[in-house]
Amino acid sequence: MIQDFSSIIERFGVGSRGSSAVVHQGTGYFAVTPQSPYDGDLSVAEQTRQLLAKAEARLAEIGSAKQGLIFCAIILADMDGYAEMNEIWDAWVSGMAPPARACFEARLANPNLKVEMIMVCAAASAKAE
Amino acid sequence: MIQDFSSIIERFGVGSRGSSAVVHQGTGYFAVTPQSPYDGDLSVAEQTRQLLAKAEARLAEIGSAKQGLIFCAIILADMDGYAEMNEIWDAWVSGMAPPARACFEARLANPNLKVEMIMVCAAASAKAE
Amino acid sequence: MIQDFSSIIERFGVGSRGSSAVVHQGTGYFAVTPQSPYDGDLSVAEQTRQLLAKAEARLAEIGSAKQGLIFCAIILADMDGYAEMNEIWDAWVSGMAPPARACFEARLANPNLKVEMIMVCAAASAKAE
Repeated sequence: MIQDFSSIIERFGVGSRGSSAVVHQGTGYFAVTPQSPYDGDLSVAEQTRQLLAKAEARLAEIGSAKQGLIFCAIILADMDGYAEMNEIWDAWVSGMAPPARACFEARLANPNLKVEMIMVCAAASAKAE
Repeated sequence: MIQDFSSIIERFGVGSRGSSAVVHQGTGYFAVTPQSPYDGDLSVAEQTRQLLAKAEARLAEIGSAKQGLIFCAIILADMDGYAEMNEIWDAWVSGMAPPARACFEARLANPNLKVEMIMVCAAASAKAE
Repeated sequence: MIQDFSSIIERFGVGSRGSSAVVHQGTGYFAVTPQSPYDGDLSVAEQTRQLLAKAEARLAEIGSAKQGLIFCAIILADMDGYAEMNEIWDAWVSGMAPPARACFEARLANPNLKVEMIMVCAAASAKAE
């Protein structure tokens, strides 16, 4: 039985509902959205650009980088934005080995939210089991 | 090549279709639903309460606890239940550092099922690589 | 800070948009679809059969096997295909301890795609942290 999870789990951006990222044994997990408050007037491309900028900052914060991405689940509120999202994504991972990924359409928690991603990455954690 | 997966993977609630939880190298993975048979007359709040009680028992079974949660993907059959689900969730994680999480809407395998969660956690496994 | 991710992450089938699988610290991650180009005239059962054959090959490629599966998220374009998918799945995992799994319905990136799965598995990686 694990007695003290705080010694093996590192949390970032801890809120009352969720943490913005969690690192465990060298693997980081987080979900990332565009800049809030979400602006439904922005295109899928613009929201994707905002989201990936936020992801890049978060990756840096937890001791990772886009080169450290392992898996990415891309959730689009409307699959018709697939090509638009991909154009921004492709530029973002250009020149590096990209993660494995999946993409599906689902209604998201906020009607102004057009894209959300769940990312798993290699992360440098100060804590070890 | 790994010859014997049973020496490095610990499975709980093994059925013919799926296991109720799997632990590998100190990380646990499972999906959890409300009490079955699912009752479509229950509110989203009530189904969420059932689900989190089941999750808590399952976490204990695999050597973890809600404090050991790393990531949670929350799937709602109808996003209109978002606030209702959150109220129960917020109370459940109150006073602790919560996991990273994502939420999206999707039709689930049973029409009476209003919420399902996929959880990743730190877990004490008796087995090591 | 991790300086060189290529020494701790192993990628398979590296494309410009995504890798077909990624292994990190003994855990493999990938998404898998039926044989491409996707044929919308195939039944859910036939697409599932194709997908699981591809998964089996990919698992072998990364030093794993279906016995090494930890978690599987099954995404169906139409939940009405649930029983059909399960029949093929059940036969595939017959006689072994299956992974934990979840299933939900979502529109996928290609209209001819009826099923996609996200898999996490124990994998033999030549690389260690």
